[in-house]
Amino acid sequence: MRQQVHFVTLSTTDLDAARRFYRDGLGWEPLADVPGEVLFFQVGPGMVLGLFDSVKFDRDLSGTEASATAGPAMSTDAAVSGVTLAHNVEGPEEVAWTVEAMVQAGARVLRAPEHGEFGGVRHAFVEDPNGVVWEVAHNPGWHIDQSGNVVLG
Amino acid sequence: MRQQVHFVTLSTTDLDAARRFYRDGLGWEPLADVPGEVLFFQVGPGMVLGLFDSVKFDRDLSGTEASATAGPAMSTDAAVSGVTLAHNVEGPEEVAWTVEAMVQAGARVLRAPEHGEFGGVRHAFVEDPNGVVWEVAHNPGWHIDQSGNVVLG
Repeated sequence: MRQQVHFVTLSTTDLDAARRFYRDGLGWEPLADVPGEVLFFQVGPGMVLGLFDSVKFDRDLSGTEASATAGPAMSTDAAVSGVTLAHNVEGPEEVAWTVEAMVQAGARVLRAPEHGEFGGVRHAFVEDPNGVVWEVAHNPGWHIDQSGNVVLG
Repeated sequence: MRQQVHFVTLSTTDLDAARRFYRDGLGWEPLADVPGEVLFFQVGPGMVLGLFDSVKFDRDLSGTEASATAGPAMSTDAAVSGVTLAHNVEGPEEVAWTVEAMVQAGARVLRAPEHGEFGGVRHAFVEDPNGVVWEVAHNPGWHIDQSGNVVLG
């Protein structure tokens, strides 16, 4: 697993307040802005800060809308809450290899590799020994260009 | 305030377990490793992931060892816990200007700019509208070289 973080995603209870603060207040330019869902800002070369509606955040972690309604299916004993780190890989098979490497290193699988909601995405969720949640993902709609700019879609 | 995150720091209850996982298990190379305190990994150009002993993490946020013993002095209603984002600036005066810009945008000051524990550091803590904690810091011992490598000390 390369020594890289590609997304830091934070749960937000008021995404509109986040937009007012970062976009309108600080003048930051969103990489993507999906009202009611997510707001992405590139905050470094190849690096994205995601502000994610807390209901969607929970649903994303728990896997399905139904299980989110019934409460997150994942452990809630994490020391760090409301944040996930994402590590993106080049191909769908590499998701499985990376998860396996993390398990060998002492991590725990929260959700085995599966297809995501959007086209071609394959991802898994893994918890490090301190309860930090990593998403390991292959997303054909994401890449970093030669200048370090993150390109989506 | 530039659209940049320089450090993502996570509270860890078992820093030795974190070291075993990231360094020994995944083979990541620490940028800095202070046993019992903090473990830094560069995870992108100009970008550092910090794993911070949870007692020290709390103390860092609350400001003093005494107040940490008595419980964190800061609000605990944040939606996101156990994580801080850091935004580094070029000079000590810029800490104050940046905090002011964040307040104008709707943030709340948790700790006004003050001198840190280490040489020349000046920093402040600010909470965004969703309870995300930012450290705004000038640290003369930190810089990013032309290749995007983070240099400490």
